[in-house]
Amino acid sequence: MSVKEFLALKARKTEAALEDYVSSWNDAPPLLVEAVRYSLFAKGKRLRPALVLGAAEMASGDDTVALPAACALEMIHTYSLIHDDLPAMDNDDLRRGLLTSHKVYGEAMAILAGDALLTMAFDVLTETRFPEVIREVARAAGVAGMVGGQVVDLKSEGETIGLDTLRAMHRQKTGALIRVSVRVGAILGDASNEQLESLTRYAEHLGLAFQITDDILDAAGDADAMGKNTGSDAAKKKATYVSIVGLDESRRLLHETVEHALKALEPLGDRAEMFRGLMHYVAERKS
Amino acid sequence: MSVKEFLALKARKTEAALEDYVSSWNDAPPLLVEAVRYSLFAKGKRLRPALVLGAAEMASGDDTVALPAACALEMIHTYSLIHDDLPAMDNDDLRRGLLTSHKVYGEAMAILAGDALLTMAFDVLTETRFPEVIREVARAAGVAGMVGGQVVDLKSEGETIGLDTLRAMHRQKTGALIRVSVRVGAILGDASNEQLESLTRYAEHLGLAFQITDDILDAAGDADAMGKNTGSDAAKKKATYVSIVGLDESRRLLHETVEHALKALEPLGDRAEMFRGLMHYVAERKS
Repeated sequence: MSVKEFLALKARKTEAALEDYVSSWNDAPPLLVEAVRYSLFAKGKRLRPALVLGAAEMASGDDTVALPAACALEMIHTYSLIHDDLPAMDNDDLRRGLLTSHKVYGEAMAILAGDALLTMAFDVLTETRFPEVIREVARAAGVAGMVGGQVVDLKSEGETIGLDTLRAMHRQKTGALIRVSVRVGAILGDASNEQLESLTRYAEHLGLAFQITDDILDAAGDADAMGKNTGSDAAKKKATYVSIVGLDESRRLLHETVEHALKALEPLGDRAEMFRGLMHYVAERKS
Repeated sequence: MSVKEFLALKARKTEAALEDYVSSWNDAPPLLVEAVRYSLFAKGKRLRPALVLGAAEMASGDDTVALPAACALEMIHTYSLIHDDLPAMDNDDLRRGLLTSHKVYGEAMAILAGDALLTMAFDVLTETRFPEVIREVARAAGVAGMVGGQVVDLKSEGETIGLDTLRAMHRQKTGALIRVSVRVGAILGDASNEQLESLTRYAEHLGLAFQITDDILDAAGDADAMGKNTGSDAAKKKATYVSIVGLDESRRLLHETVEHALKALEPLGDRAEMFRGLMHYVAERKS
């Protein structure tokens, strides 16, 4: 199976399960459900669910046990995009080629759709029946993870920060959720400690590569392929890999990070082939 | 012990535990922790923690087992206040006698402080080690609970709605979290099914009484005692018990609701004495 086929397969599986969850929200106001659906089914890459399901499959041969966690991670990712796009935050009008939630439903509803997705993600997570898994996800999404990273990002706008600060910020803002996706998939698939350790190191490099690629694409990518405006980081004076070390050095850092990620997978042998492919996919993507 | 002493005791216990949790957030940005602290330690009534701890104590004689849940419920309540006060939502400048979060820290930080509290509440909840408890809380706070009720509330501004719609809206917006506070306390205290059933009915009436009192206070209360502006519901053309059935009928409904709540407690006998006192406290409060 190619990486694209793998991603498409896991995306279909995740979307079908997400549809089941959202369809079961009988007593929710229809407008809230509509706003949630608008962002949740906006054809994202579904990278986090693919990591959850792929890790479980690698460890146990079956990804079914990890499907609720895959859905929960995508719900948390989607909530973070809705809130990040708000006028008070990044003030973005476009996301995945569509108007952002607050442009369609207004700010109040966008805030509440995000709150709803975050809350219901934990309802879904209780199906895993592992309090440890729920805890890891909460911490990755919380004050020392995604939300904390977003605060550092906001505060660094217009400031001069160094590469170390940038890296620490992204480790929280995007890295933590990518890392925990791989980890909970592995834990739910009953991976050995050695497998969990290798996959965790891999995921840390993958998250870093994801962010460097994001910055390169924003600086030098194709707006049509991206489905959003490029050059927005520079316009907002955001600190990025490109703004701090330049485009060439960013590309070199990306290459180095890919090498680190592949090295982390070595102990896993052939079983990790799809994760190697995913690494290349993330680093070479055009959108 | 008087109700006031009971509330003060449970508030101290909850606040000490909340302090421990927040102090352990080592890798969080200091500004985010400051914003969280500002709202979390703003001297609320701590009604929800008191209900959690009181129910556990009634069932088992000891409330220690329910302390994490008490903290989590207060964190979720606080997040909902921060987000409700935002300019895009109720646009309130004052809360508990202090400037609201966004007036002090700006909108972006207020949104993130709310997101952080909601997320970390689920981290804290995993200490209960009962996935059922986590699930009940997520559902009470989610699309068919608090967030759903807030959507209905926003959409009903300026609209003419009936008493049934108003009651259904409050059952979600404020009732669900009060109900789940009592329930998780009872469940964690290993209450019998009969006790759980009686306390659940009680909590539903308590939540209703809480809301009717809120509406009466906004229409006819003392702004100084309230620590916020009164008359704001009418100014915003919000549907309230007072706007729909008038002040006298609201007071009669409140009296009737108190009677229902006390009746629900009858099977519990003397053990429920503190819950009777709490009912009177909620219905007769001045702020």
